[in-house]
Parts: sequence; structure tokens; C-alpha cells
Amino acid sequence: MRTKDDQKKEALFEATIKLVNEIGFAASSVSKIAKEANVSSSTLYVFFTNKEDLLVSTYVEIKMDLSRAMLERFDDSLPIRDILKNAWFSMFDYISLKPHYFQFMEQFANSPYSDLVDREALEKHFVPLIEALQRGIDEKIIKNVDQNLLAAFLFHPLTRLANPRLCHGWELNQADLETAFGMAWDAIRL
Amino acid sequence: MRTKDDQKKEALFEATIKLVNEIGFAASSVSKIAKEANVSSSTLYVFFTNKEDLLVSTYVEIKMDLSRAMLERFDDSLPIRDILKNAWFSMFDYISLKPHYFQFMEQFANSPYSDLVDREALEKHFVPLIEALQRGIDEKIIKNVDQNLLAAFLFHPLTRLANPRLCHGWELNQADLETAFGMAWDAIRL
Repeated sequence: MRTKDDQKKEALFEATIKLVNEIGFAASSVSKIAKEANVSSSTLYVFFTNKEDLLVSTYVEIKMDLSRAMLERFDDSLPIRDILKNAWFSMFDYISLKPHYFQFMEQFANSPYSDLVDREALEKHFVPLIEALQRGIDEKIIKNVDQNLLAAFLFHPLTRLANPRLCHGWELNQADLETAFGMAWDAIRL
Repeated sequence: MRTKDDQKKEALFEATIKLVNEIGFAASSVSKIAKEANVSSSTLYVFFTNKEDLLVSTYVEIKMDLSRAMLERFDDSLPIRDILKNAWFSMFDYISLKPHYFQFMEQFANSPYSDLVDREALEKHFVPLIEALQRGIDEKIIKNVDQNLLAAFLFHPLTRLANPRLCHGWELNQADLETAFGMAWDAIRL
């Protein structure tokens, strides 16, 4: 059951995402965010030490939510291609359903705030996927290249394709999605 | 030779990019941009009808600059893979050299302002590349899929790889770049 504190924190996360997307990082002050979330500034400071902490925590919260979605259908007994395909389609659904979360993530990742994130702690939530990719490399199914390269081709085109604005109104049907995953797979497979 | 008017317009473009990157679209008022560019607001209105016009024109200016860079080494007599490779490496260099231009482009493309862009007029600057891709499709070298899919795999991972912040400090050397282009090519080739 969600406590009152959980509800307040969630309201603060949602307010942060909304305001940053609408008016940017600089103009999104702690007092504006508290007002948008309907909590007092002093309550906000119970949960977060400062604006940086609130922004970083919001980003980490979305990333953890995304990792849960991507791993929901994770099944280690499947062939590596199917493991990645399930995660890929789950990520596409996640971004399509929550474009405002994704917009915040992109802005955050491009900002100096992203240097404050504890990458190692965050990566732990994606360990099953990282291990599956490594297994694919070991079994000579996937190219033995840096994880950044694998991620750039496996997941980054997807973030564009899930955003109708970036595709100038073109929306992918199920067949297009299958084609798109096939292209991602062709990029990373040996 | 650049006229005084050209210089003023360029100063306004640079000021728009700088301010939008620093404080976002909402807070970047016409008067702030004019002040940053060291021109009067009334001069700004000689060149641009309003804030929307200035933002859209700045985006179009960067896109045209990018198209010039990508087509600098364009040679229609080369094999299609080499044509695309030259454009790909040129785009990587462009983003690496001008990350602030690219940051503006990304923010703009994700904003409602991007709906105001005359896509057809803009596409004309990329016609040699679009035609090369179509030739590759016709010659059964490249997958016969929507141009959005080709662009998403050919150019979108590159925008991530050219941004050290998004790769958490990992910077690609020449061998990594060759590998990355190979992966892009694998994604789009038949």
C-alpha cells in the first residue's frame, strides 16, 4: 500500500517532470515545483535536500520505472534475440505511453545534472539485459563491441521511432515495428 | 562578403541558440535574445516577424548548415556505401564540433515549434542523400523500408555517439567510428 509520503513524493516527481518539460530546468524553482505538486516547500525539503537532488531523484525514478517495464517479460531461457526483442517492444510501449517521462529523461541526460547520477547504482537495474548481451557476445551471436555501441543501435533509434513528432507524423504499425527491430538486430548481430 | 545585415542575423541566431540551451524556450524572450545579440528589439523585428519566426529560422539555418557539411564530400560516382559513409562521418564531425547547435536542434525537434517548419523546403537540401538512398533501394543494396526507418538507424545512433555526455564520458576513436558506421550499414543493407 502506498503511504501518504509515497503519494507526496510521487506528486513531486510528476510536478518536476511537468514543469521542466514546460519551462525548462532553469525556471523550474523548488517553490514552483512544490506549488504544482500541492505540497509545501518545507515538506519538499523533508524528502529532497535541494533542487539538484529532486531533479536527479526524478530521473532515477523514471529509469527504474523503465527498467521494470523492460524486464517485465524477461525470460532467461529464451534465445538472446527473443530476450532483446521483448525488452525492445516493452521499451517502445513505455515511451509511447509516457512521452512526457521520456522528454524529461532526454533533457536531463543532455544537462550537466546528469553528471550527478550514480551510474553504477542505476546500471544494477538493467543487469539481466547487460548479462544477456554479454552472453550473446560470448556465444558469438552479437558483435564484440562496447556496450555504448550496442545500446546506441539497439535502443536509440527506437526512442526516435516512438516519438511521432520526430517522425513528422509517421506512426509505425506492427509490421513496421517488426521491421525496425529486425534492423536493430542486424546492426548488433555477428 | 557578409553584409552588416548578415552579421546581425548571425548574431541573433547565435544568441537564440545560446539562450534556449541555457534557459529554455519559454524564458527566451525576444528582448533577452536581442540584448544577448547586441542588437535592438526593433532591428530584430526587421528580420523576424516574431519569436516563433526567429526560433524556426534558427532551426532551418542549422539544418542547412548541417546539410552543407554532410554534402561537402558528396560524390555520386562512388558506391552507395561510400557515399553514405562520407555523409555519416561528416555529420559526426559536425555534431562533435558544434554540440550547442545540436542541443538546440534536439530541443527544437521535440517542441511544438517543429510543427511550424516547412519540411518540404528543408528536405530539398538533403535531396542528393535521399536520392542515393533510393538508388540503393532500387539496386537491392538497401532495405526497401520507410525513409524514417533508414534515418533512425543510419543517423540517430550517431547523434548519441557524438555526445560524450550521453556515452558517460566514453569517446570514440577512429576504429570505434569505423565499427559504428559498419553497424549502421548492417542495419540498413539488404
